Amino acid sequence: MPARLKNAYDDNNIFAKILRGEMPCHKVYEDDVAFAFMDIMPRTKGHCLVIPKCACRNLLDADPDVLAELIKRVQTIAQAAKAAFDADGVTVHQFNEQAGGQVIFHLHFHILPRWAGIELLPPASAIEEPHVLETNAAKLAATLTRDS
Amino acid sequence: MPARLKNAYDDNNIFAKILRGEMPCHKVYEDDVAFAFMDIMPRTKGHCLVIPKCACRNLLDADPDVLAELIKRVQTIAQAAKAAFDADGVTVHQFNEQAGGQVIFHLHFHILPRWAGIELLPPASAIEEPHVLETNAAKLAATLTRDS
Repeated sequence: MPARLKNAYDDNNIFAKILRGEMPCHKVYEDDVAFAFMDIMPRTKGHCLVIPKCACRNLLDADPDVLAELIKRVQTIAQAAKAAFDADGVTVHQFNEQAGGQVIFHLHFHILPRWAGIELLPPASAIEEPHVLETNAAKLAATLTRDS
Repeated sequence: MPARLKNAYDDNNIFAKILRGEMPCHKVYEDDVAFAFMDIMPRTKGHCLVIPKCACRNLLDADPDVLAELIKRVQTIAQAAKAAFDADGVTVHQFNEQAGGQVIFHLHFHILPRWAGIELLPPASAIEEPHVLETNAAKLAATLTRDS
């Protein structure tokens, strides 16, 4: 078995549950390929996640054609996040396996709006208030709708 | 003019010079779409960069079809980097605009092999010895050739 397939996909991960509607989230976007929602422990205002709807553990085992579609959604949502939150820039993180920083084992891209002079919070600093996440999700979703 | 086009591409950036052969690099991979080479200030052993051959400043202004092809190369090189350096995981960073962590204004993905318990060095910690970069580039290139 190739090394890239050594770690299997576990469909009990939290993002799989979100995709199946078994866990709540602050949804930003959805289409046939991708789903986006707010990170509940944001490292910056507007921190959101873009994931594929299909089962893949991370970048290492994903179908290249899924990746090709997914990165277009990452771009669109990064552009919208920069506009929605009047950011100066955007940082994109994508973690693979525990040593690579991955915590949830369903492929995801972190989109982190950034402002000059403001550092990222450490990972998993604190769970954000639901009303803040809801407000930011709505703002981002409205910008996506407006600009699309 | 849309905000995403506000910052123009400057073809005097270092990566544009590398692509034109006006600056040296430790090359890992090249095809019609993408070019990959070692980061001269690695944050981890095997830290390399994947860039498109065409002119784009970052993820925010890139042609979506270029991104779709580029991410496939990012995947292939991430898989090869994990194998070549016997890593436990891979971290991918992609920075947009100065506030987002971008230093060179030509779109690039950082591929960072990772091992359990070993943190990333801070950005731009030190320029690596050329023979180390050359060895790592050759190792990665050989793995890419072997696995392709």
